[in-house]
Amino acid sequence: MVLSPAQPSIQRAEDCQYWDVSASFDVTYKVIRANGVLLSSNPLLLQLGVPEKNYREDRARRLVFVESEVFRFYSGAINRFFCGEGSRIVVLSATEKTKNLRLVERTVEQMAQFGINRRSEPVIAIGGGCLMDTIGFAASIYRRHVPYVRVPTTLLGIVDAGIGIKTGVNFGLHKNRIGSYCAPIAAVLDTTFLATLPTRHIRNGLAEVLKMAIVSDATLFQLLESHASDLVEACAESSPVSLRIINLSIQRMLEELEPNLWEHDLYRVVDFGHTFSPVIEMLKVDYLLHGEAVAIDMCISTVIAARRHLIDTTAADRIIALTDHMGLPVINSDCTAANMQTALDDVVKHRDGLQRIPVPTAIGKTTFLNDVSLQEVMEACECLQRPFSEGALG
Amino acid sequence: MVLSPAQPSIQRAEDCQYWDVSASFDVTYKVIRANGVLLSSNPLLLQLGVPEKNYREDRARRLVFVESEVFRFYSGAINRFFCGEGSRIVVLSATEKTKNLRLVERTVEQMAQFGINRRSEPVIAIGGGCLMDTIGFAASIYRRHVPYVRVPTTLLGIVDAGIGIKTGVNFGLHKNRIGSYCAPIAAVLDTTFLATLPTRHIRNGLAEVLKMAIVSDATLFQLLESHASDLVEACAESSPVSLRIINLSIQRMLEELEPNLWEHDLYRVVDFGHTFSPVIEMLKVDYLLHGEAVAIDMCISTVIAARRHLIDTTAADRIIALTDHMGLPVINSDCTAANMQTALDDVVKHRDGLQRIPVPTAIGKTTFLNDVSLQEVMEACECLQRPFSEGALG
Ligand SMILES: NC(=O)c1ccc[n+]([C@@H]2O[C@H](COP(=O)([O-])OP(=O)(O)OC[C@H]3O[C@@H](n4cnc5c(N)ncnc54)[C@H](O)[C@@H]3O)[C@@H](O)[C@H]2O)c1
Ligand SMILES: NC(=O)c1ccc[n+]([C@@H]2O[C@H](COP(=O)([O-])OP(=O)(O)OC[C@H]3O[C@@H](n4cnc5c(N)ncnc54)[C@H](O)[C@@H]3O)[C@@H](O)[C@H]2O)c1
Ligand SMILES: [Zn+2]
Ligand SMILES: [Zn+2]
Repeated sequence: MVLSPAQPSIQRAEDCQYWDVSASFDVTYKVIRANGVLLSSNPLLLQLGVPEKNYREDRARRLVFVESEVFRFYSGAINRFFCGEGSRIVVLSATEKTKNLRLVERTVEQMAQFGINRRSEPVIAIGGGCLMDTIGFAASIYRRHVPYVRVPTTLLGIVDAGIGIKTGVNFGLHKNRIGSYCAPIAAVLDTTFLATLPTRHIRNGLAEVLKMAIVSDATLFQLLESHASDLVEACAESSPVSLRIINLSIQRMLEELEPNLWEHDLYRVVDFGHTFSPVIEMLKVDYLLHGEAVAIDMCISTVIAARRHLIDTTAADRIIALTDHMGLPVINSDCTAANMQTALDDVVKHRDGLQRIPVPTAIGKTTFLNDVSLQEVMEACECLQRPFSEGALG
Repeated sequence: MVLSPAQPSIQRAEDCQYWDVSASFDVTYKVIRANGVLLSSNPLLLQLGVPEKNYREDRARRLVFVESEVFRFYSGAINRFFCGEGSRIVVLSATEKTKNLRLVERTVEQMAQFGINRRSEPVIAIGGGCLMDTIGFAASIYRRHVPYVRVPTTLLGIVDAGIGIKTGVNFGLHKNRIGSYCAPIAAVLDTTFLATLPTRHIRNGLAEVLKMAIVSDATLFQLLESHASDLVEACAESSPVSLRIINLSIQRMLEELEPNLWEHDLYRVVDFGHTFSPVIEMLKVDYLLHGEAVAIDMCISTVIAARRHLIDTTAADRIIALTDHMGLPVINSDCTAANMQTALDDVVKHRDGLQRIPVPTAIGKTTFLNDVSLQEVMEACECLQRPFSEGALG
């Protein structure tokens, strides 16, 4: 703290005095990719957040929130695993429609009833991004923060939503309008949950994997190319190649997130595919999944870069072809001039006055544009609407 | 980020991989004691949170939340001051009874309607601790944080609630059960608001000033002693001596807060007077103010220390006499064995397994006790119940 003399520029009154208070807050958390976390023989989930001296081999007391669809498939394992005396398993339907303050309130009520011991009873959240965002937010505000562990059960959760520190819920029609930055103790990533995840949701997660490949990892991109036709199956089965792909994607994601956890730097390569997608994703509820909208956006952004000769045509065509081979859309009819204009306006607002649109300059390399015109966007969309055999850039 | 090899102690599955993510978040904010902040000629409030290059001399656009009782007295000045185009003044009744999630929701709605520009339009909160706690919390979660400025209008707000980084609201019967740590851009402390604050609320704030004197500043204590009989008037008039006292109290408070903003260290001297007070304060709504309960607690804690010969009797008697001279209670009939037992139990829970009860060892010096028995507490209460002329320790 610095007790400063009166600072002329902001002082008028005679008896002014001021202090500068400053401090710094350290955040650390673990991201653990380990399968079989619900096996009774596996102590990992119960060890997290408990000092070694306090850890007892008998089952510990935990408050566990599980997404209802996940519970439908895994109730047996979950009940067996969290059988410690006084444990409580709360099953919630957390979807884009119920991810709101009401659900947070219900969660907080459960926390108050349970009476969490901050030093040895971290809250556990098992489910997709919607559940983790909600429980993470509730944990961040209950008694000004109680520790929690994320166990994402969707691929999007495993490679993206589950491994950062953002939490949030929708407010009215505003997506994620309320939330916090609050690191979990750990994110525990078990790909065996993917065995029951609908194909479309696996593709949804693969879109974010593809994003990481395009912006920062040519090797990952090649891996995706070589396995494009059976990626969904590979993920559902937790095959070795899917684990390699998922590990690489997480690695790249964390490399981008760690130096910018609170998003103070608005030039974020992980925003690739997130410029035009929010608008087309929000048009109709449940019509386009997040990853699908991101796929379309990545293709538009890539064509913009190609038409500016920032990336060579071969590389751009590979990106679009792979998107398509992975079963993701490359364009849709909602990419109208009106919607694209809204997207350009919104992005300037959200990125503090500049577009900062990430575009690829090669596979694995990115730059940012601040001067993209609506016409340019619409021309890119037109290229993508041509029959695919002609090549988007042909 | 450290990509670590499998850690034997927490690993069972073969294909386990894990990452340690770590980062650090810097917090800085200003605490400014300056009077006349609502004078049209004083640009201070409109300059805060606006980069110099963006600051325009004409009145800026602001979203301002004002406590209804405060607005009753200061509507003229507030309307004149915040007359920038597009500004909105929202008047809210924020009391212990309405300080809850509903009020947060209403606040967030206003923020969404207003459309805050994070870089140049900090939210302004003008009111007592209840209003600041609520608006601070809403600002901390709206779009995962928007900047805000605190303008406390009570003495408790000026010397305590307004200058730290805690926010919060009640949840059901649980006081401040939901909240966050979120620094404002600045706390602007204008003592001229105290002119209209009811006497009892001035005393309420003086209790926290007295606390700071006892735990860390013998000079401040002497100042309070010399002016005990006309302190309330001095504060209401913003007399030079009251400013000296308030400045000193803030200085001591910030010295204690700054190294421990997130309360990771549970040995907090500022918790003096906050061991037994929560229980007796919560018994009957609106019966005992926070500072009054703190005063009683300080006296009990002081007698406990004196009976253990940790502080000499003269010093202890001075503490109790000053509390009384300042018009604060030194004991009340709610200090029953049952209530004191509850308090001892609660405090161990909230301070992670240890009592950590701050007690004075001299005027301006503090130590902590971890082995206070109920009997000891009750004997201290009995001493305080004796007719005052006999001296609490006589
Ligand atoms: N916090 C962040 O950093 C971040 C990042 C990206 C996305 N998100 C958020 O994540 C949410 C989307 O997450 P999501 O894609 O995981 O959606 P989701 O949580 O809605 O889950 C998708 C569907 O899969 C079901 N499901 C989940 N796991 C299953 C399993 N193992 N087997 C069978 N069914 C299962 C769910 O019931 C749901 O119907 C959005 O609300 C988005 O805002 C957050
Ligand atoms: N965040 C923190 O660090 C912190 C610290 C201590 C207390 N608090 C919280 O602060 C709250 C108590 O704050 P408080 O004592 O300011 O109470 P308060 O906000 O209820 O205000 C007290 C009364 O004074 C009125 N009032 C306020 N300013 C006035 C003025 N200038 N003139 C006339 N009337 C005025 C209010 O309408 C109210 O009736 C509690 O909820 C407590 O939990 C927070
Ligand atoms: Zn995304
Ligand atoms: Zn207090």
